[in-house]
Order: sequence, then C-alpha cells, then structure tokens
Amino acid sequence: MRVLSLHREGIARSIGASLLSGAMLLFAMPAVGADSVRPGESELKAALATCSACHGESGAGNEAMGAPRLAGLGRVYFLEQLNAFANGDRKNATMQSMAEGLAKPMRASLADFYASLETVDPKRQDPVDDAAGSSRGAWLAVRGNWPAGVPACSECHGPGGRGVGAEIPPLAGLSPAYIVEQLESWQQRDRPAGPLGLMGVIANRLLKEDISFVAAYYGGVASREGDTKAPSNAERQDAGVVSLAGASPSSSNSTTFEVPDERSIPNDDFGREVRRGEQIFLHTADAAPQYVGSPINCASCHLDSGRRADSAPLWGAYTVYPAYRKKTGQVNTFAERIQGCFQFSENGRPPPLGDPVLTALETYAYWMAKGAPVGIRLPGTGYPKLVEPQLPPSYQRGQALFEQKCVLCHGRDGQGQMSGNATVFPALWGDRSFNWGAGMEQIDNAAGFIKANMPLGLGRTLSDQEAWDVALFMDSHERPQDPRFDQSTARTREEFHQTRLSMYGTTVDGRMLGAR
Amino acid sequence: MRVLSLHREGIARSIGASLLSGAMLLFAMPAVGADSVRPGESELKAALATCSACHGESGAGNEAMGAPRLAGLGRVYFLEQLNAFANGDRKNATMQSMAEGLAKPMRASLADFYASLETVDPKRQDPVDDAAGSSRGAWLAVRGNWPAGVPACSECHGPGGRGVGAEIPPLAGLSPAYIVEQLESWQQRDRPAGPLGLMGVIANRLLKEDISFVAAYYGGVASREGDTKAPSNAERQDAGVVSLAGASPSSSNSTTFEVPDERSIPNDDFGREVRRGEQIFLHTADAAPQYVGSPINCASCHLDSGRRADSAPLWGAYTVYPAYRKKTGQVNTFAERIQGCFQFSENGRPPPLGDPVLTALETYAYWMAKGAPVGIRLPGTGYPKLVEPQLPPSYQRGQALFEQKCVLCHGRDGQGQMSGNATVFPALWGDRSFNWGAGMEQIDNAAGFIKANMPLGLGRTLSDQEAWDVALFMDSHERPQDPRFDQSTARTREEFHQTRLSMYGTTVDGRMLGAR
Repeated sequence: MRVLSLHREGIARSIGASLLSGAMLLFAMPAVGADSVRPGESELKAALATCSACHGESGAGNEAMGAPRLAGLGRVYFLEQLNAFANGDRKNATMQSMAEGLAKPMRASLADFYASLETVDPKRQDPVDDAAGSSRGAWLAVRGNWPAGVPACSECHGPGGRGVGAEIPPLAGLSPAYIVEQLESWQQRDRPAGPLGLMGVIANRLLKEDISFVAAYYGGVASREGDTKAPSNAERQDAGVVSLAGASPSSSNSTTFEVPDERSIPNDDFGREVRRGEQIFLHTADAAPQYVGSPINCASCHLDSGRRADSAPLWGAYTVYPAYRKKTGQVNTFAERIQGCFQFSENGRPPPLGDPVLTALETYAYWMAKGAPVGIRLPGTGYPKLVEPQLPPSYQRGQALFEQKCVLCHGRDGQGQMSGNATVFPALWGDRSFNWGAGMEQIDNAAGFIKANMPLGLGRTLSDQEAWDVALFMDSHERPQDPRFDQSTARTREEFHQTRLSMYGTTVDGRMLGAR
Repeated sequence: MRVLSLHREGIARSIGASLLSGAMLLFAMPAVGADSVRPGESELKAALATCSACHGESGAGNEAMGAPRLAGLGRVYFLEQLNAFANGDRKNATMQSMAEGLAKPMRASLADFYASLETVDPKRQDPVDDAAGSSRGAWLAVRGNWPAGVPACSECHGPGGRGVGAEIPPLAGLSPAYIVEQLESWQQRDRPAGPLGLMGVIANRLLKEDISFVAAYYGGVASREGDTKAPSNAERQDAGVVSLAGASPSSSNSTTFEVPDERSIPNDDFGREVRRGEQIFLHTADAAPQYVGSPINCASCHLDSGRRADSAPLWGAYTVYPAYRKKTGQVNTFAERIQGCFQFSENGRPPPLGDPVLTALETYAYWMAKGAPVGIRLPGTGYPKLVEPQLPPSYQRGQALFEQKCVLCHGRDGQGQMSGNATVFPALWGDRSFNWGAGMEQIDNAAGFIKANMPLGLGRTLSDQEAWDVALFMDSHERPQDPRFDQSTARTREEFHQTRLSMYGTTVDGRMLGAR
C-alpha cells in the first residue's frame, strides 16, 4: 500500500507539473506489445488535452459543464467507468463516443494518470466529519440510514469521502448536481450498479430529498433550509426502500425496542458525556489510542454506531449486565464487559475501571438503552444464532466466497483498508486484526454477524451455509495471540478454545494457528 | 448500654441461681418510702413463686398453660403489661386479678427481676435469620410484607426476635399459640396497641394465614406445609389491610414498577451473586466491615431491602445511572454512586471499583430493576420532595416530636439501638451515625424520607411540617466530619453545605456543628 501510494504521488507530481507548465512528460511506463502497447508521451498528452477540455486541467472537474473531478479516481474504478461508457452500460452519449475512441492501453494510461493526482483540491475544505449530525446530509454521509438499510457513505468512501483504494471513488470534490445525477442513474439503471451491485441497492433505498441533502454535504454546500438537524427517528426510517431480490433492507429480526432519537441527547453535562462516548465508539483507535492495539473501532462490529439489531447493539448489551460469563468465571458488570472488548476485539489493554473512556462508553450505551427493560434480553441482542449448517463449513467454499464478495473491502489478505490513519474496513486477520481471544474469533459468532450484516449494506443476502463457510475461512488465518496464552498453544487451546468453533491451535496449510 | 447489660446479667445470675437452688436472695435494691417502698426479699420471693406457678421457674413460660416466657422482658414493657392487665386494657381475667394484687413497688421489682434473666433459653435454637425467605413465616419475620405496610418483625424486635431495649419485647421463646393469640388480641383491641399504637396497626395488616406462619417461625416450629418458600409478590401484597385513621398501609406514591418476585432469583452463579448483594445490603456492617465506619445497613435508608418506593428504592436508582452529579461535578456510574454511599452514609471508605462488594450490590440492584425501563425516572424513585413548609422548620417543635415518636427506637440521644453487634435502629447523630457528607444530612432529603417512612410502619402519619421540623432537629446535632473537609469548617460549609438545608457549620446551643 505505502509503496504504491508513494509511486502514485511521484507520477502525479511529475505529470501534473508538466501539464501545467507545458513541458514534455517523462513517463515511466514502457510501451510494449500491440493492443497492450502503452501510448507514448505525446499521444497521452493529446488524449489528456481532450479530457481536460471538459474535466479541467489536472482533472479538477467543471461543475458548469457537469463534468466530474477525475483527479484521484482509483484505477479500477476509472477503467470500469470508461469501459461502461464505451459499451453503453453507463449511459452518456458524449462519454460513449469518447471512450469508444480510446484503445485499451490508452484507457490504462489515463487511469494511471488520474489515479496519481490529488484526490481533493487542496484549497477545498473538507466537509466536517460530523458524527453528531448537524444536518440530515451530514448524518447520511457519516452515519447512514441503517433502519432503511443504508450504510453511511463514509463507511465505504472513507472519512471526508476521499475514496478508498483502487475501486471506491472519492465523493469529495464532486458537484452536488453530479452526485444527484449518479444516484438517479442508479435508480433508473442507467449505469452499472458497481461492485456487488451495492450502489444500485443503496440508491434505491434513498429518498429524493436525502439524495439532495447528501449531495449538498459532499459538495461542500452550506446546509439547505430544512436540513439543519440530525434526522429524527421517523426521518431515518422513512426512506423509500425498494426491495431488490434477496436484499432485505433492514434486519428481518424485528426488534421491540426503538433507539432514542439522536436529537434527544441533551445539551448538558450528561449529554456531553454521551457524545464523548459516541465519538470513542465511532473512532476508537483515534479517541482511545492508549487502550487500542489494532485499529478497529467499536462501530466496526456494532453497526450503525451501536444501534443496529443483530449487530450486538448497545441497547441489547447494556440491559443484560451484570451477567455471569463463562469466559471470566464470574459475574461481570457492563464496564468489565467493555474492558473485554478492549483486551480482545481491540487487541489492546483494558482501561482501568473508572477510566473516563469506560465511563463515556457506558454512558453512551445507557443513553441508547433508554426505555429498554432492565434484565430482559430483547430481540436483536447480540448476533443471531444460526442453526448448524447442512454441510460442515468448508475452507475452500469460504475462500471462493471471500474472493468474490469480501476482497473489495477487506482486501485480498484480509488486511482491511485505511484512509490516512482511519480504519475504513477492519482487518479480518493478521497483525492489525482482533486477537485470538475476541468473540468474533468464534466461528458461530462470526457466522451470525456475517449472515445478518455482510456484505455491508447487503445483510441477509448470503445463505446460512455461505456465512458458516466464510466465517471458517476467516478464522483459519493467523491473528494476534490470545492474551490469556498459557505456556503453550496446545494448552491455551485446551483452556480457552476447546471447541470446534475455533481454529486456534489447529493446523491449516501445514502451520499451527496461534503458535508463538 | 454495655454497662446496663452487664448489670442485668449480674442480677440474672445471682437471682436465677438462687431460685433454682432455693437459696435466699441477696437483692441489691433497698426498700424505701411508702407506696414506693420496694418489697423485701421474702415478699418478692413469694410473689415470684406465684408467677412461677404458670410462667415457670426462671420465667421460662409454660406453653401448655398458655403462659408466655417472661425471662428477658424489658422493664418498661413488663410494667406496661402489668398495668394494662390491672386496669383491664389488656383483657385477661387471671392476669387482671394477679396484677391488681401487686402494689406498684412489687410490679417494679418483678420487672427488674424478669428483665435480668436470659432472654432466650440457652438450649433453644434460634430461628434462622433467613433473609432468603425459605418460608413465608421467615420472610415476614426478617423481611416483612412492605407492600401491605408491614415491616419485618426483626426490624423492631431485633435479629432472632431477641427483643431490643426496655420497651420492645423478645418474640423468641414464645409459643406459636401465644403469638397468634396476641396478634388476634390486637386485631380485636383486647390489648393496648403499644407504643405509637404500632402493634395495633401492624396486626390489622396481617392475614390470618401469615399470623400462623410467623408464629410458627418464632416458635421454632418446623415449616408448615404450604410454607416452604419465600412469598410470591401476589402473596406479599395480598395482606388483609385494614386502614387505620391516618395510617396509609402502603406508599401512596403508586409506582408503575413491580419488583421481581424473590422466588425468581435463579439458583445459578448469577443468582448467588444476587443473594450475596442482598446479604451485604441487609447486613452491611457485618458483610463489608472493611468499608463501613458507622454500623448502618444499606437497608436502614432503603427500606424493604431496597424495594420500597419513596425510600430510594434500588430499582429506581439503578435505572437512572450513569448520571451527572453536582456533588462530584461529573457523570458517575452506578458503581461510583454506591461508593458514595459507603463514604458518606456508611461513614466508611469507598470500595475500589471492581471490588466484589460493589459488584454484588450492583448485581442485586440490577436484578431488582428487572423490567424497569432504562433511563426513565420511575414514580417512587428517591425520596419524595416535600414542598416548602408553611412555617420555617423549628428545632423546638422537632425536639418535642422526636421525644414523642422517635425516642422509642432511636433513643433519647439519637444513638440508635443495637442487638449484639447488629444495628436494629440506626444512630441519627453522634459518632456512630452517617457523616456530614451524607445525603440524609440534607434537611429536605431527611424530611422526605421521614414523611414517607417514619415512624417505621407508620409512614405518612406525620404532617409535612412535622417532617421538616424533626428533620431539622436531627440535623442540628453533631456527627462524624465530612470526609471532604477542607481546611476549616467555614470553608467546608462554603464549598459543600452552602445551603439552608444543612446545619453544618452553623451554631446550635452555642457550639458550631462540624467544628474539628
């Protein structure tokens, strides 16, 4: 990642500078082969001049002409679009004729060029990453509309909408009109629904009004009249959901509990503590770095900022503690339960009891549980328990599914994706993942979570069997050691993982998982 | 107390021994004056012989004859009964003629004699102080039936029913038949209702069945058929309440919340933690001595084991934490709130967060709040807020009321009463009371508590004005220093007591309260 990005920056500086100064390009990639022969410098320069006519020098975009910013688009995304224009899947007469005229190697060179430029105009001010939701647009962008099955834009497009990797384009710097046009295109099936068909699904779940609000937000336009507050619960759920085959917009585990309205957080000392907890919950690695080992946020496993049923919602957890836990062999308070999250899921160390981080998180959970009955396990608490799969979970089937549906976000090596220092997609294994003591390491927990919630925004589109398979696959990789490690992997397995629901201490591909 | 009790034991040994051996009495009290001339030894011995005919040697009682144990009866109680027999207020033909025949000095000497004997037959096994309520009788004895306005017998008669002081007689060692007969006598007004008229009120609140159960319990009779469990909630509330003038049997603050059935505590690790918390709550000084400075139990301020509305019930408190507290200037968790109780109300030191004492208490509170809505202040939470009194609270009126209604239990010097090491009635001021930092030290809190709950079993029989007056009187006495003491009493008052609702730092009877 780092090497690639440095490389891109290097290209960007040299080409960008030469375009602006008019000097000749010194292009690093050699031109080889027939259809795969990359264009020469002058050829590329000519093509770029054509692009620039509408998209501006350096691909900054031209709002008046409806031409979007191209600078910083990921290679894969850029090529997919050019191809889609060329074959008419993405309907745009001008771009169709432009794209048709570009040979494959030229498309690749253009993709490389634009990918190497700055994603966001340095003069542009980022939209505030406003988790408090000062407007519906901001809320949709950074919190989503989960009751209607809409993840936050930033959950895939990254903080500030700066894009993630080669496939997920930036939103920042696009004009509101362009964003509206694209979302409407997806609704009208005038452009391909993109990886996993996700944007087609999401666009259909958005209300017309919400589209304009979120477009204004990313366009850096000041809040519109009527868009100065976090959405009420009614507004969050009021989206025009269009059911797509197999995609259930919201959890089918209906819950008896309605989370409090974000607007109800009071502007007082208590409310400030709630918001503090909320920020720690959303940006855990940033907000509580002293207790975090792997860059995972609470909200990575507890979707919709801890609100979502079947995703271990905070209101479900808060109301069932103190509870006896086999894992600790004693009754634990809610604060002690959170300590466990830090120790295992965050691969960090538990904040001491009474630490402001714990109090803020407990207060946030308490606020969210407002009105929920103490001591009653509500529907939607924890992750769903799937019945035993028909076939024993399979590594091979899991791997195939992973490559098809998970790599886009979590990466080929399960390493996740960052945007700057912020985790956009958490690592599923490896050094930066949760450790062998985490609940998500249990195959049944993971299968339940995956079934209900994965791929993000497309929960309940996998079969139970697929969820078990891919959970097994995920668990069949190395990750940070169990902090309860006792003398040997074998002994540690015996003490803490003596179950076919954990791969810890078993041998996969000739290597024992959890071996020191 | 200690001196008096040693004195009594000394008399008991000498007289008891001489009666048994038939040797002459060496009686310490000189016979002086006419009507007040105490009987001589032989005279007393003759009278005792008469008593013994029915009540047995050493006043052990004779169940077959229906004659109760007299040994260990408090002087005041004993005299009151003799007087009541004599004047016919307590209806009993035999005892009337007996009592009529005894001159005042003889009655006094008999009272002294019986008070000096062992309360309980040393061979007798105490009824188990069974807070878990293995039977309805046990529950009534040690937990009461608060929903019907019935305090536990042991709340006045002491642990094991051994009696308290000179006015509250033992129940242990009485035959079940005798206990039943007395409770029915009170119902039928065949005997005086006793101090504050309390026993008349209480007897009327008891079901016939409960009378037989509790009588069996104190009689040491094995559990009766149908009486092998803690009462269900329905049974607790199903008492035959007879409203007496001015006495409201249960809190008139109706609550929307029903506490869980004691029977629902599961027999598992969680349930054991709940019971552990319950025991600490009931017997705090015994169960958590390391954190307790003054011998006060949680249940001293939180009646009905923390269940009672308007008595700071646990279910009410549990559901409104974490909360911002002015007292600490920050959001506190429930565990931190309990720490405050130990520091101030228990005049001890706060158990560290995570301490088993805190976890057990939190678990008990959580269990009790089962089904209560998180974050909603339920009716009956805390103590009632009384409106400002018509007249400014008065020390003099408070003192007069205190002497009339409070001394019986809390003692003339507010020192409370113990039975062995167990607090029966907590101290209201002095070295063994809550300290100047406790919530009960605030006159408004105390007034609300007193109004709703005092005298015990006779809540809501005082006027608001009386509650304010006696609360002021209570607060106008010295007690342990505020642990937040800062340099001087004046400064400490300024920081923590700058309110006319605390007498801290003010001068009463020429002495500044809270002065070092």
